[in-house]
Amino acid sequence: MTIYIPPVRDMQFALHDVLKLSQSGLPGHEDLDPDFTEAILDAAGKLAAEVLAPLNAVGDKQGCRLENGVVRTPDGFDRAFQAMKDGGWTALDCDPEYGGQGMPYVMGVATGEMFVSANMAFNMYQGLTHGAYSAIHAHGTDEQKQTYLPRMVSCDWTGTMNLTEPHCGTDLGMLRTKAEPQDDGSYLITGQKIFISAGDHDLAENVIHLVLAKAPGGGEGTKGISLFIVPKFLVNPDGSLGERNGVTVGKLEEKMGIHGNATCVMNYDGAKGWLLGDLHKGMRAMFTMMNEARLGVGLQGYACAVPAYQNAVAYATDRLQGRAVTGAANPQGPADPLIVHPDIRRSLMDQKSFLEGARMLALWGAHLIDKGHNGDADAEGLVSLLTPVIKGFLTDKGFETAVLAQQVYGGHGYIEEWGMSQFVRDARITMIYEGANGVQALDLVGRKLALDGGKHVMGFFEMVKSFCKQQGDSAIAADFIAPLKNASKDLQTAAMFFMERGMKNPNDALSGSYDFMHLFGHVALGLMWAQMAVAAQEALDAGRGDAAFLKTKLATGRYYMRRQLPITATHLARIQSGAAPVMELEAEAF
Amino acid sequence: MTIYIPPVRDMQFALHDVLKLSQSGLPGHEDLDPDFTEAILDAAGKLAAEVLAPLNAVGDKQGCRLENGVVRTPDGFDRAFQAMKDGGWTALDCDPEYGGQGMPYVMGVATGEMFVSANMAFNMYQGLTHGAYSAIHAHGTDEQKQTYLPRMVSCDWTGTMNLTEPHCGTDLGMLRTKAEPQDDGSYLITGQKIFISAGDHDLAENVIHLVLAKAPGGGEGTKGISLFIVPKFLVNPDGSLGERNGVTVGKLEEKMGIHGNATCVMNYDGAKGWLLGDLHKGMRAMFTMMNEARLGVGLQGYACAVPAYQNAVAYATDRLQGRAVTGAANPQGPADPLIVHPDIRRSLMDQKSFLEGARMLALWGAHLIDKGHNGDADAEGLVSLLTPVIKGFLTDKGFETAVLAQQVYGGHGYIEEWGMSQFVRDARITMIYEGANGVQALDLVGRKLALDGGKHVMGFFEMVKSFCKQQGDSAIAADFIAPLKNASKDLQTAAMFFMERGMKNPNDALSGSYDFMHLFGHVALGLMWAQMAVAAQEALDAGRGDAAFLKTKLATGRYYMRRQLPITATHLARIQSGAAPVMELEAEAF
Repeated sequence: MTIYIPPVRDMQFALHDVLKLSQSGLPGHEDLDPDFTEAILDAAGKLAAEVLAPLNAVGDKQGCRLENGVVRTPDGFDRAFQAMKDGGWTALDCDPEYGGQGMPYVMGVATGEMFVSANMAFNMYQGLTHGAYSAIHAHGTDEQKQTYLPRMVSCDWTGTMNLTEPHCGTDLGMLRTKAEPQDDGSYLITGQKIFISAGDHDLAENVIHLVLAKAPGGGEGTKGISLFIVPKFLVNPDGSLGERNGVTVGKLEEKMGIHGNATCVMNYDGAKGWLLGDLHKGMRAMFTMMNEARLGVGLQGYACAVPAYQNAVAYATDRLQGRAVTGAANPQGPADPLIVHPDIRRSLMDQKSFLEGARMLALWGAHLIDKGHNGDADAEGLVSLLTPVIKGFLTDKGFETAVLAQQVYGGHGYIEEWGMSQFVRDARITMIYEGANGVQALDLVGRKLALDGGKHVMGFFEMVKSFCKQQGDSAIAADFIAPLKNASKDLQTAAMFFMERGMKNPNDALSGSYDFMHLFGHVALGLMWAQMAVAAQEALDAGRGDAAFLKTKLATGRYYMRRQLPITATHLARIQSGAAPVMELEAEAF
Repeated sequence: MTIYIPPVRDMQFALHDVLKLSQSGLPGHEDLDPDFTEAILDAAGKLAAEVLAPLNAVGDKQGCRLENGVVRTPDGFDRAFQAMKDGGWTALDCDPEYGGQGMPYVMGVATGEMFVSANMAFNMYQGLTHGAYSAIHAHGTDEQKQTYLPRMVSCDWTGTMNLTEPHCGTDLGMLRTKAEPQDDGSYLITGQKIFISAGDHDLAENVIHLVLAKAPGGGEGTKGISLFIVPKFLVNPDGSLGERNGVTVGKLEEKMGIHGNATCVMNYDGAKGWLLGDLHKGMRAMFTMMNEARLGVGLQGYACAVPAYQNAVAYATDRLQGRAVTGAANPQGPADPLIVHPDIRRSLMDQKSFLEGARMLALWGAHLIDKGHNGDADAEGLVSLLTPVIKGFLTDKGFETAVLAQQVYGGHGYIEEWGMSQFVRDARITMIYEGANGVQALDLVGRKLALDGGKHVMGFFEMVKSFCKQQGDSAIAADFIAPLKNASKDLQTAAMFFMERGMKNPNDALSGSYDFMHLFGHVALGLMWAQMAVAAQEALDAGRGDAAFLKTKLATGRYYMRRQLPITATHLARIQSGAAPVMELEAEAF
């Protein structure tokens, strides 16, 4: 049985000492004082630790079952889902017009981290609903919003995203699912979709599928794609459920992890659907969901590793093995705890310094989204640039962190009973879905860098520069600002390399895209750590807060700057080697 | 269904163009000309690809079952095991005096790679037997050798290693299993051992357990430990099987992978055992097995990723998705194959350049062992230094490589049906067993560096230096020798840092031990690539061999030098930050 400890104090530090949430001038944020957010986080943490976490191993072991065409979720998921609905957690950051609580997105991310940490597979049922909610909220007609949103906000109905088909994932232009227009304005949807998370289950009365399909007249490739709402049960005009729609579960996939979530093959056989947004503009509408979904997956990537780290710490503290090289630390016992050994600490510090930086980055990203929702175009542009970094970097490193945590257990880490394997197996999917991380890197380098004339990446560099200038003489300058400057310089050099070379040979840029994503991720985390260091130092100087916590924060940050950030040089060297080493071989030579 | 293609050509290149096996002057090696080894490798490859590989997924899915105290292996394992025995593969590099074929160890490693690649869990049954064979061969009495070895060489009887107990793995000094001397010279063994691979099964008539236990009078800690032979069935004086011994399987562990191998809790309840080697010198005898076992696990680490890579290449070649940024490569098709995309190639080149370098390192290590067996003390010292590097680095990178290969599949990589998940899950154990990789790093820095006054590491540096000097003006100098020199300098700087600081504060060395292991691994692979480049260039210049293969070899090597080797600078930076960032926090602050 694994433990899970909600990291409320660390979140409070991020929200108030760093982001200074209630002073950010955003509508609705002024209420978010420390007492208020602490109450929310404590309540979410309680649900996560006491209700969701105990079901994590259950979900992994039992998985979902397809019985007579209906998916059954693992034991206890129904009660936990009811508890999540009863607590209003599914409605937290939704529009009050449809029953939401109207909290900012940043609070959805903070509470979401805890739900994911406690039980990632379980939380996907509501997480995907939130994505579908956002798409309908952004693109639906008034009638569609009235019909679907209140029930999706409450999670009486859940949602899905249907993109992938057997022969196409990333390359959606090839999709074959067809939408035939009917006289009543509806469409008949026919085709097969795969990898549909939460495609069916027994937790909700209805499942609202958002389906990409081709309606006549849209032309080739992605231009011909439209987005449709296809409910499992048709909805009567009075809001009650009508007849079963022509969508069925073909099979459940057997996966490496997230066994508690039903990954379905969905067969659409003339299912009734309604256009969402404009005809042949489905990709645009889908991207509304995808950006949010990608941030959500970045969140999953590190959140999944949070309990892995916590359990590794507990194991390293309890397990007696060997003696400290500098003399017995536990002379009364038969051996010292693992945590005395430098290499165990190296591993735990790698984990801790990543996870706290990742949390800060995710919350900052969410805060930028809140600003964007309030009309701040710069914030919106910046978060659009950061989205592939948050998705790709946090999931790669989150998986790596879960592997590190598993390693602390030695042989016990490999035995399913101890639960560490599940964290690793679950975390693995985050590097893949919502656009495999290579696609994130392509999005970053091929699209986001040049967006709006490169304005957003220049904005990022300016922000780092002015922050460094402002903190140039501060107490944390030597430990934080100097390494951040170096790393940021590596990032700028890489961006310059792409600009100079990428025009002539795009492969010179794309061969370095993955390294650039990681280089960017490290600079972003370096910035987060420098900002946290400033906040911690200020609080210490002012005698505010828990001094031990703040000193630990500074020490953890120093570790990141000394031991993690130097890797930017390696990424830059890889980038600067250009396309030649990557592209030289003929395909047959592999 | 996954594919597996035996890499015979690449092995032949390593054995003959680089190691020049038949000219190495070792007894028995003169017969190893290219035709002879090719025949052996072809035959082993055929068994691996046609018999073992098709059972890999079967083993993963079915796992082993404990029925009425007896372990049942997956369907087909019995026939495959018989085929392996019939082919004489279990006897390949064993002593002819006991029925072995007397081939050098390097051929055992080459064929072993193929068996592991095809079915790692299956191959462990004979792999562990080989380890036990080696220990009895090195430390047994004549009677013990006559009793056990012929049947173990043939794998009519298999072997195990019993070290770990529930409360101790690395720290064997704490073990509690007791050995009580009997009047007839035997001992009664009582205690519980865990994580015993191949602890029981239905593939052999008998299982010969080598068990660490404490006999009276040996003192505290590891000093009191002796090694015992404890057969499942007692052996009658005429060699027939007698009564069942007091050793039983407590349970089978549920693991993340290697499901086809039985990982057993073994209960010894007054089981009859016989001392192997000297009383109270069990650790020394066990290390005979462990060094070989660690090399074997290093082999597993990369061998497991070989088919993962091969399948990723096949998928990247078949799967049509997107268009090359430089213009359609497959204009007649609906899209281009994945392999046109730079980031897919970046991933495949990372995999390919690691795997071929790893193979070379493993074969070189095996060749050094053969030299050591023939009395070359320098070779023995060098391979002793390299053993933790081979184990730790090749398994870490092997796992990473399997993950990269899985990633090429996108969502399909996460679905068990496609087989990529198994490669990742199987590879994961190699980082853990036979001494978790942190323990390898400790062995390297805490023990092997200073062994014989640092003679072996100095010898390694000298070898690199003289090789670089000799090749300083060659055609491959710019691409291979210059980067190797740089990387080797980083390694020497790190070693120097440990020597200067480690005396005063051992934590300064141990905090960097893991990075040092990886730094060493990269320099070793850089050396392998430079040597392969010399060999490939020589063959090209002489018009020998397959020019396309040789040019690919050079291009792959250039990739390694440009894109992988620069990471030595990051490892050095981490090492040079010393103990402070690692050790600063109190245990409670994690």
